[in-house]
This record gives sequence, structure tokens and C-alpha cells, in this order.
Amino acid sequence: MRRLLPRRISCVLVVSLLAALRAPAAENAPAKMLGFTSRHAEEQLALEKKFDAQLSAADQKAWVEQMASAPNHVGTAHNRANADFMLAQFRAWGWDARIEFFDVLYPTPTKLTVELIAPTKYTANLQEPAIPGDRTSTQIKDELPPYHVFGADGDVTADLVYVNQGMPDDYKELARFGVDVRGKIVIARYGGGWRGLKPRTAYEHGAIGCLVYSDPRDDGYGAGDVYPKGGFRPAESVQRGSVMNLPLYPGDPLTPGVGATADAKRLPISEAKTVLKIPVLPISYADALPLLTALGGQVVPPAWRGALPITYHFGPGPAKVHLAVKSEWSLKQTHNVIAVLKGSERPDEWILRGNHHDAWVFGAWDPLSGNAAMMAEMKAIGALVKAGWRPKRTLVYASWDAEEPAMLGSTEWVETHAAELREKAVLYVNTDTNGRGFLEAEGSHVLQSLVNEVAADVKDPETGESAYTRRVAKMMVAGNQKGADEEARRWAKLVGGGGRPPIGALGSGSDYTAFLDFIGVPSVNLSFAGENDTAGIYHSAYDSFDHYSRFGDPGFVYGVSLAQACGRLVLRAADADVLPFSPSDFADTVAQYFDEVQKLADGLRESTSLQNRLIDEKMYTLAADPTKTYLPPEREAAVPVLNFAPLANAVLRLKQSAKAADEALARLTKTEASSGDPKRVELNTLLRGLERELIRPEGLPGHEWYKHMIYAPGLQTGYGVKTLPGVREAIEDRRWPDAEKFAVVIAERLDAYSTKLDRIAALAQPAP
Amino acid sequence: MRRLLPRRISCVLVVSLLAALRAPAAENAPAKMLGFTSRHAEEQLALEKKFDAQLSAADQKAWVEQMASAPNHVGTAHNRANADFMLAQFRAWGWDARIEFFDVLYPTPTKLTVELIAPTKYTANLQEPAIPGDRTSTQIKDELPPYHVFGADGDVTADLVYVNQGMPDDYKELARFGVDVRGKIVIARYGGGWRGLKPRTAYEHGAIGCLVYSDPRDDGYGAGDVYPKGGFRPAESVQRGSVMNLPLYPGDPLTPGVGATADAKRLPISEAKTVLKIPVLPISYADALPLLTALGGQVVPPAWRGALPITYHFGPGPAKVHLAVKSEWSLKQTHNVIAVLKGSERPDEWILRGNHHDAWVFGAWDPLSGNAAMMAEMKAIGALVKAGWRPKRTLVYASWDAEEPAMLGSTEWVETHAAELREKAVLYVNTDTNGRGFLEAEGSHVLQSLVNEVAADVKDPETGESAYTRRVAKMMVAGNQKGADEEARRWAKLVGGGGRPPIGALGSGSDYTAFLDFIGVPSVNLSFAGENDTAGIYHSAYDSFDHYSRFGDPGFVYGVSLAQACGRLVLRAADADVLPFSPSDFADTVAQYFDEVQKLADGLRESTSLQNRLIDEKMYTLAADPTKTYLPPEREAAVPVLNFAPLANAVLRLKQSAKAADEALARLTKTEASSGDPKRVELNTLLRGLERELIRPEGLPGHEWYKHMIYAPGLQTGYGVKTLPGVREAIEDRRWPDAEKFAVVIAERLDAYSTKLDRIAALAQPAP
Repeated sequence: MRRLLPRRISCVLVVSLLAALRAPAAENAPAKMLGFTSRHAEEQLALEKKFDAQLSAADQKAWVEQMASAPNHVGTAHNRANADFMLAQFRAWGWDARIEFFDVLYPTPTKLTVELIAPTKYTANLQEPAIPGDRTSTQIKDELPPYHVFGADGDVTADLVYVNQGMPDDYKELARFGVDVRGKIVIARYGGGWRGLKPRTAYEHGAIGCLVYSDPRDDGYGAGDVYPKGGFRPAESVQRGSVMNLPLYPGDPLTPGVGATADAKRLPISEAKTVLKIPVLPISYADALPLLTALGGQVVPPAWRGALPITYHFGPGPAKVHLAVKSEWSLKQTHNVIAVLKGSERPDEWILRGNHHDAWVFGAWDPLSGNAAMMAEMKAIGALVKAGWRPKRTLVYASWDAEEPAMLGSTEWVETHAAELREKAVLYVNTDTNGRGFLEAEGSHVLQSLVNEVAADVKDPETGESAYTRRVAKMMVAGNQKGADEEARRWAKLVGGGGRPPIGALGSGSDYTAFLDFIGVPSVNLSFAGENDTAGIYHSAYDSFDHYSRFGDPGFVYGVSLAQACGRLVLRAADADVLPFSPSDFADTVAQYFDEVQKLADGLRESTSLQNRLIDEKMYTLAADPTKTYLPPEREAAVPVLNFAPLANAVLRLKQSAKAADEALARLTKTEASSGDPKRVELNTLLRGLERELIRPEGLPGHEWYKHMIYAPGLQTGYGVKTLPGVREAIEDRRWPDAEKFAVVIAERLDAYSTKLDRIAALAQPAP
Repeated sequence: MRRLLPRRISCVLVVSLLAALRAPAAENAPAKMLGFTSRHAEEQLALEKKFDAQLSAADQKAWVEQMASAPNHVGTAHNRANADFMLAQFRAWGWDARIEFFDVLYPTPTKLTVELIAPTKYTANLQEPAIPGDRTSTQIKDELPPYHVFGADGDVTADLVYVNQGMPDDYKELARFGVDVRGKIVIARYGGGWRGLKPRTAYEHGAIGCLVYSDPRDDGYGAGDVYPKGGFRPAESVQRGSVMNLPLYPGDPLTPGVGATADAKRLPISEAKTVLKIPVLPISYADALPLLTALGGQVVPPAWRGALPITYHFGPGPAKVHLAVKSEWSLKQTHNVIAVLKGSERPDEWILRGNHHDAWVFGAWDPLSGNAAMMAEMKAIGALVKAGWRPKRTLVYASWDAEEPAMLGSTEWVETHAAELREKAVLYVNTDTNGRGFLEAEGSHVLQSLVNEVAADVKDPETGESAYTRRVAKMMVAGNQKGADEEARRWAKLVGGGGRPPIGALGSGSDYTAFLDFIGVPSVNLSFAGENDTAGIYHSAYDSFDHYSRFGDPGFVYGVSLAQACGRLVLRAADADVLPFSPSDFADTVAQYFDEVQKLADGLRESTSLQNRLIDEKMYTLAADPTKTYLPPEREAAVPVLNFAPLANAVLRLKQSAKAADEALARLTKTEASSGDPKRVELNTLLRGLERELIRPEGLPGHEWYKHMIYAPGLQTGYGVKTLPGVREAIEDRRWPDAEKFAVVIAERLDAYSTKLDRIAALAQPAP
């Protein structure tokens, strides 16, 4: 479900450090590894060498080909077959595996109609034809037509309005052009924010139906050669996807907060707040062209124009559209394949690792490329176990089902096992789609150093340099390019000047969501990306083995790299003397976020004041062409100065406590000690519970299911992250009392975190 | 010839001042007008009222319709008829008018061919068909086919390469993608810089032919509805234009620096450096589509993509193109219509005003809209004269011929009359294309206050506010928009905070060029623009009366406004007690330019150092996809710290001298004095010669014809201005010794200017 569009690499490194990484370790210097004593670090490096030796690109290729050989969305026979196949494999490899079943709401379409009925007639095809050379594209048995899961059923006819990307700012701009969508059907192009926000925002503005199409500017010939010549989206291809109101809560709409077990108490569908209220469908740009061509009204502003060979207009009308969606709304069975390897020393500390296995159609890219890497790790670890090794902590691997409709498999599992996870979970490593290029990492910042350390030990298969070095290169070049955004420039400068390389923050869009946001399990998501013609077939029937083999990871060599990276994360977390967390990375990142929200409030104060001045002095009116409609923006109340002092103090304390804890932990691993040493046991227990201090059981206002006070997917961004969300979203929504309230709430969570850090520092002091 | 694309409004105003402008003058307060005593200011306002009463929109409409009724490019019968018509009118209105003839090189095409010969066949149409509702579009008698004047004759066949906009930076990017244009034909889209640079730059990089097309992204359906539904360029329309190497020198290629009179000494064509060396043709996007579709090679970067429904590739090939151009290279007669009204008191001080009358085809927009406004001024002034008024200074009005091929008419006239102009010229007011919206002004900054003052007295016909107020509104809104560039933000901030509103600087592209850059006559160019669908028919056969009446200035009301503005400039300059110049505006602007060039050097030093570091550390290589060609940029030598101290001192002195002069001049006009007062006569003489101090007879390195040390069209920008060009271009070209040398040269010119200002200040002191 993770979006396939290339994202900015989120990690860089100082060049001096770079040189150090490239240089071979001095002959007799002790091995250094976060959380390990020197001797254990040597052992761990030897173990990783054995692990690597078990990884085979051919395995991954075979698994992707087999599992992508038929449609495998929720409820299909092939989805079940894939789960059974994995179960058998995992067991054969020595894992204690089982399938955990949940029954979730999963509507499937029975009748879909999109027609232009005036001023000309056109009936949309709504189908993806077979493509020469793509073997599975001929195989439409069991395939669902392109649709948006969790849109409403409905049958509506109305004038059409083009709303650009259909995001809240687009509606502000529509209002300035005097365009009202009430009672209309809107058509939005993909991009600019998560798809599910498009129909929801349309509904909030009074629209009665919504179409979402892939404009060739972003996702078609405007981006690159289309399939089968290149990898990009051909004219009749459609991006399917979930439009559940995910920012409220993910998972089964009928069982918010609890597992969708057979006996769970379920809401009636009509009370499920994450199911949308209006019908919505995705269409291709071949189907969108006649509709957009028929629109009248004013010409849209330059940023709204796509790459179709027409002049884009707003409407409304004269294009009139008939949109009808009818679905079958039953519960479907899902199959999470769970495999456990019990820890030899600390079995109640769980290292979690997952990737989903359900797709929209065939899913070679999404999710089977990542799932195959995970399977490779499991096979390799199984071999290590057969050779006599055991992890010190317990490993829990999961191949999730029903991620595509909005992380139903992982969410229901986490909700079911919430109590145990709160107690035992150490970290969660997620993957999803994989490709070629640069190692991308987003996650809890307490894991930042661990991720960097692992990246430095994984070789990039194309260049022979480390994955780490290539990330640094990308960051340095991207952040110093003309037009680089502020964050990219800041990161390049930070790293160029000797600072530590940051990883990104997690929003939503894959199975880490419930772990991080509902429980507070430190989580990280990894993938290789940035060199692929990937946007092109996302969530279409052309996401196939044939496509992936040409445009994804032709030799499956990055699949091996991904397994190396994730395997190392898992194995190091499993065997570390003390958990390999770096509280200072977290503290520095929170300080940066705090700086951002302060600037956000200050900037909003200034821009609001200026905008009101321009409104009052009629500047907008006099700057507009009076022969056209372009109204001034709405007046906003002035932005007060907010009291952020409690949060400022908490951030200050956090930085000091984190520094002391980091230093104490580093000293500690300089001496060997038995793993049964009670001090170490207590230290590990404290570290394990650290991220849980950031959880507020009452959650965030408006989306209470989300309980992490540092990271959350935004109510208005969907997948996109909001850091310090209680404060940041309150500022953006101009809820000033909430902004001050959550400055205190976050300060309390950070103080609790600091208190735990102080205990860790005290414990880690050498005996006097 | 002025480009029709909307430009940013270049003037803003403080809101407090705004309020003052809107408020009626206090009852008994003396009238205030730059350069006038109170009593004379009252008289002048009364005169302007009478002037306004003579302006008629119907006149302008009739003149445009008549003069645009047939093709009127250089050498046509209708061009001559238009000159004769004006001559008769000017005389009838009481002016002492004559036609001044020059014989200039003006090649016209006899045979043009563009063919795709592989991998498929296509023969370009190279014609603009008739359009329903556009009456003159059927009339192709006397019309030239679309071509680029002053390209070379030639017949070449080669592989095609797409070079984006064909500017120097595009070739740097091509090199990184491993694309070489040597021996190839390039195809560039319009935009990004002056058209003439495209074939010249292609030639400099080894190309043997050049095509330039209008991409619908910028100039077609991507910008708005196409003609005749809207005003934008239809698929088969072509932008003609000059590709003379104008940055070397404008005017007749055979007579650089001297007038192209009958007996002038002429260069052989082969020695005329401003005639290009390779064939070049403009084509429509209908003709470009098959060529671009046939290109192979890598996919171009996002910024290079146009709005044609294809994936854009670089080539070279497999598209192979045959391009042939054959022209008739004779001298043609041109007709400048010159009209004089002798000054009653100071006949040897000339107030100059001009607009060209030749077009590419019919030219209702370009140039006849501006020419009609100028004719309206002449008719109104004639009426004032018949009613007994005479200007104190001499008025010289000119309707130039042969502007389109590169200001041949005005340049030859200025070169012919150079000695007299150096002695007598006070200022030159230019117009060209006019439209609806906002008063745009660019010019010598000593005229900035005069322009602002006049704008405040001209009513915007759409809103009833002053043209000044609308400019302020546009500037405040544009500069506070998301994505506003640095200059726009700076200006909005400056004005929002109480600073004086700036006007833009003049580069080239219309008839002010020779006045400003060859002689040093303070010049200003005015137009209304910003509310037009104007880009669409620029330099095409659809620049017609029918188009202008729908999409230009339907009621010709902005034609009246333009005449009001230019008429006031002329009349105030003619009658002022002391010339209405504001040296402080000039000094402040030069200080800003000096700040810019220092930042340019500092920024280049930093970016060069960083780029070299990224090259040395292989960051570019590691950030690139190794399966594609994307090479690191070329290494550049480090940028030294430059000695700008002489210029810094000169700027400091200039600011002080200008302030003292401004204050003295302001005090002076508080007392009435006879115009024959010897002190005032000397003052006016000094003021008249002020801008001439900025002229360096040896000119600028590489383009010695251009002699103004503050403003010049850039060698690499064509129309685009380079301020402090001797220093700025040297930095951009990394000629460090030249940068330091011209810092001294400019300092000397500014010191001479300051010395004259000191004399003015001393003279203007009240007697002790």
C-alpha cells in the first residue's frame, strides 16, 4: 500500500565519517556495534556473514513469480494459497508458525458506472486491457474491476467540477474562483496528498460523488515512457486503493480499537465512521479525457494543469456525469501468517518484523517484492538455527493480510495482542514495496543510529559502496540542487558540516501504523527506491512479475540487500547486550520539531496579519482582473502568541537526559558482563519501555485511536506524517487552546521519557 | 517586438502614501509636481485636463483597424502606406513632420523546408491557415511565411536533438546526460530567454541547424483556450521573429555604429557579425509534434517537458530532419515618420517619444496598439497648439519602421543623429504593444519619481482607482504570494514597509535601446498588461484587429490611458521649471545592484566550492542511477575574493551627492523664477547631461556598441537586462580581472555623475 512515488532520501552523513566508513577497521581495534560489547560485536559480525551466505536472489525471484501468478486481494483463493504456502515454508525452515484469522468488512464492487451524459455522450471503460509481453495481464479471472474500497454505494448524476488534487487548499482556491461543488460530482487528479482525502474532502464541501484519475503529467507519459515500452502508466491503467477514513482509525471499520476476532462486538456498517458517505471511483486518463474536455467555466491556474492535450477548466458543467457504485458488503476472512522463534535468554522481549502479502491485483511490486525479502531473512535465520544458533530475544515475523484496504491484518492483530505487545515489544521492522537505488528509512528516531550503522554494513549492489554512502551522496546532491526545499537544504547542510544524518518520521500507509501509533513500539520502515520507473503501475493490474522483472529489481539483487539490512536490524536487536537505542537522536529530532512548530505559529501569525491587511485595503480586488471572478481570500482571526514554555522546558530537559543516558550506555558496553546481570536486565527493561512513555491513552483530538504524541498521520494528510501532532495540527487548524493544551501534554510525555532516561543513566554508571 | 508574455508589475507604493494619493488635495495647499513651481504646476494640471479631453478611443480603434488591414512588415506597400498616412495626419495636426529613409539589410525567405525523413516521413506545413471570425487571416497576399529574420541560408540534413529552451544552462544539462549536438539539428521550445540566443547558442555548441517551436505548455492550450475560442496560440500558429545577434549591436547589420544612409559605407554581408551562421526556422506545435514523437534516447528531466501528449526524449535521432532556408538578401527602404514641435523657450532641449509601426504580419497588438496611443497624444497636442499653447522644450515624436528585425529604424536614426542627441536629448518615452491591466514601467531610475507621479494621475479605466494604486496592489499581492521570487518579495516588503516603489531596468527588445545604450538618453518604456490572453498570437498572422478587439483592449480604453500617461510624461518634461529628475532614486537603485553583484560573487564562490567538493568526493556519481547516463558537472576553478572597494566608495558618494541634489532641487521649486534665469538654464543643462556621464565610449567588453555602464541587454540574455553589466557579466562568465576592472570603470562613471550632482546642489542653493 506504500506509495511508490520516489521520495527524498532521508539520511545523510558527514564526509569525514564517510571516509571512516570506507576505511578498513584498524587491525587490532575492538569491533564497535551499538549495544554490544566488543567481544559480542565480533561474534555478531561473524553471524551476519553466515546469514548473508544464505540469501539467494533466485529464491526471491521464484517466490515473487509464484505468489504474483494470480490475483491475490483479500478473499481470493490465491491469497489463501499464498498464506498456506508461506505457512508451510516457515515451518519447514524451523519456525513456530501459524495463521491467525480475522473477519473484516471488505466490500467488493458488483456494478460500476461512469458516463458523460451531456453535452456529449461517453461511457467510461473502467477496465485495464491485456498488454503484449505482460503475461498475467490477460488473466482477469478473479480480478476485481478498478475501484476504491470503502467508498459508499450510490447512484448520482450531476454537473462535473475539476478540483485539481482535491485537497483542502484546492477548495480554498476554488472559492476564490467562485466555484462551488455543492450538489456536484468532482473529478480530482491523483497526487498532492493521500487518495482517501479526496472523496472525504469533496463530501465535506458538499459534493455528491467523486472521481479520481491519474493525470499523465504525474503518472503516465508526462513522467516517462509508458508500459510496455517503459514502466509508466499507460492510458487505460487505473490506480485502485483504499479511501477509508484512515486518519480516524485504520483496520476493520466495524471493530475500532479491538481485534476483529470471530466473537468481536461489531458496529453496524452505518455507524462505521471510516466508511465514506459518497460514491467514488478511480478512472484512467483515457476515461478522464472526454470528461475534462467537456468542462466549461474559467481556465484553471497554471499549477492545476495536467498533461492532457486540452485546456483545463473548472466547470461546473456543461459536462454532466452519471456515477454509480454498487458493492457487496460482507465480512471476509483474512490470513496473517505469524512465525515465532523463541529467545534463548530474554524470551519476553520481542523483535517484530513484518510485510504484507495481499495485493490489489497481482502485486509483484506491492507487496511481494518486500515480502520475498522478508521470507529470505526467515529462511536464512532458519538455517542459522539449524546450525545451532538461537536468538537471545524472541523473533516474531508476520506476513500480513488485508493491508491494502487499510492495514486490516496488522491492525486487528495488534489490537488483539495489545496488552502483550505493550509489555514485550522491543521494536518493529516493516517493509513493503522494494525497488532499486537508495536505502530509504523512516522511523522512530531512537532507532536512527542503529539504522545508520546497519546501512553502513550493507553493500549497494550497483556501485559496490555501502548503502549508507549512497544515501549520503543522494542527500548531499539533492539538498544542494537549485530548488531544493528547506528540509533538503537543512539536511545537506547538517551533514555537510559534520552533523548526524537524520531519518524521516513515519506517518501511515503500511503495517507499522498500529505498532507505532496505537502501542508505541519503536518502528522503522525500510526500502530501496529512487531509480525506478515505479509510479507507473502502482495499484494496477500491470503491477506484475513481468513488469517488476524489467523495471523493478531485474536481478532481485536489491531484494537481497533489503534482506541484509532488515536481517541485521533484527539480529542486532535480538542479540544486543543492551538494546541498541540512541536517545540523543530522538531528543535532537524532537528539538527540531519543536523549532518547526514555533516557526509555523510565527509564520501563520505574520501571514494572517498581512493577508488581513491586503483584504482590508482592497489590494486583492485591485490586483485581480475585474472581467474575471477571482475573489479575495477569507479573513482569518489574528494569531495570538502561544505559551510554549512548558514544552520548551521539557525539550531542554530531554536533551540533557538523553545525552547523559547515551554516554552512560556507551561506557557500559566497554565492559563485558553476563546477560543475566540484574543491572543489565533492568536496563533492557527500561529501554524497552522508553517509547511507550510517548503514548497518551486518550489519543489525539479528532483521531483518538492515534496515541503517539510525537508522530501521527495527519487528519488532513492521510499517509503524511505530522510530528508533535497535538500542537502542529492545532496550529494549522487555528485551535489555539488545543495548541497550548497539547504543548503541556507533550511536555508531560517527554518529562516521563526523561525520567526513565535518568534512571537508565543512573543504572548504567559504573559502580563507585 | 516587445514580448507579450505577462511580466511582473515593477512598482509598488506604501499604503500610507496610497491613502494620500486617494485623498483629495487639501483645499488651499499649493499643487506639487516634480520640477514645477506651485503656480506652474497648477497651469500644468489645467493643460493636462485639456489634453485628456482630446483623447478618443474611437480614433485609436479606427487607426488600428486601418493600419492592421494588410501585412505591413518592412518593404510592403502597406507599410509605406501607413507611413504616408501618418505623415499626412501629423502635418494636419500641426506638426512639422517628415519621413526619414534608411536602406537596411532585410532578408526575406524564398524557399523554406522542414521534413522528417526518418524513421517516419513528415513534411511540415509552415503555414498559418485562415481562422473563422478572423477576417484578415484569409488575406495572405503580401504575407511572408513564418521565418526567423537574419538566420543563415542553408540546406542541412541531420539527426534531431531536443535541447529544451536552447539556453546555455540547457547545454550544460545536455552534457551531463551525455548528449552532444555537434553536427546535429536542434529543436528548442520558445521561452527561457530571447529567441535569437537559441540558434546562436546551438551554433556555438556545434549544431548545424535549429528549429524553434511554440510548446503548448507555455504558448497554446496549456496556457489557455486557443484562438478563436480564446486568445491563445492555436496548433498551427507560428511565432516569427528576429534572430539577429542583437547583443552585439542592434540595427542594420551592415552599418554598425553609423546611420544606414544612402551613402553609408557598408560591410559585406559575410562580415556582418550579427547575421547568424546556421539556418533556423520557427515552427508550430502541430509541426513539432511528429518530430518530437520520433525522438529516442533518454527521457528528459521534468522541467524540460512540454504539454504535448508524448514522453519527451533528448534524441539524438532516430528522428532525422531536413531543414532548408533560402532568402533574398537585398537592402530595403525603411520609413521613420518624424514629427517635431519646436520649444518656445528651450528649443535645444528635446523631449523624445516613439513607437514603431512595422509589424510581422498585421500587428494590431504589436505595434499598432501602442502606435495608436502615440498618435492620439500627437493629435491632442496638436489641438493644444492650435488653441495657443506651445511647449517650452522641443517635442520630437517618431513612428519607427523596421523595429521587428531588431530596431533598425530607430537605431539608424539615433546613429545618424548621435551628435545632436548627445547635446539635446532630455529623455525618451517608448511604447510598443499595449493591453489591459496594470501600468508597467521600466526605465532609467532618474525618471522613477516622475513615472510614479504620472501614474498616480492616470485613472485605471476598469476600477476607477489610479493606475498607480493598481500597480501597488499587484505588487503587494504578487510579492506576498507563495512561491514569489526574491525580487518580488523584496519589493513587496520595501513598499509594505514605507519605501519608494521601484521601476524595472531596461534591457532591449524595443526602440529605446539606441537612445539609452548608445547615447545615454534617460529612457522609459510604458505599457498596460497583465490581464490579457496575450502570449497566444505574438508575432503570428493572428495578431489582428479582430483578435485585439476581443482579447486585447476591447474598448480601446487602455489605449486612452496609455496616451494619458505618456502624454503627461512628455508635457511635464517639456514644461518643467527644472527637469523632473530624481537622482536619489537612481542612487538607491545602483546601491541595490551593487549589493546584488556582491551577493552573486559570494554565492558563486560558495556554490563552486561545494560543487567541486561533491565532484571530488564522487557524490554526483553515487547519487546517480548507474544504469543511465548522468555525469557529474564540469569542475570549475575556485572563485577569488574580488576587490569591489572602488565601487563601494563610489556608491557611497553617489548616495550622498544625490540626496543633497534632490534636497536642493526641491527647495528651488518653492520659489518662482523666470525661465530665463541663468542659474536655472545652467541647472537644466547640467540635469540634461546627467545620464550621459554613465556612458563609456569604449562600451562593454564583447559588445562594445553598448556604452551605458549601468544598464545593458545581456550577451547571454538578449532582451533581458544586466545591470552593472561590466561587473555582473564578468562574474557570470568567471572573468575575474574584468570584474575588478569594471568595478573601477563603473566607479569612475558614478564619480563623474556625483561631481555633476554636486554642481547641481551648489547651483540650487538659495543665494546667501
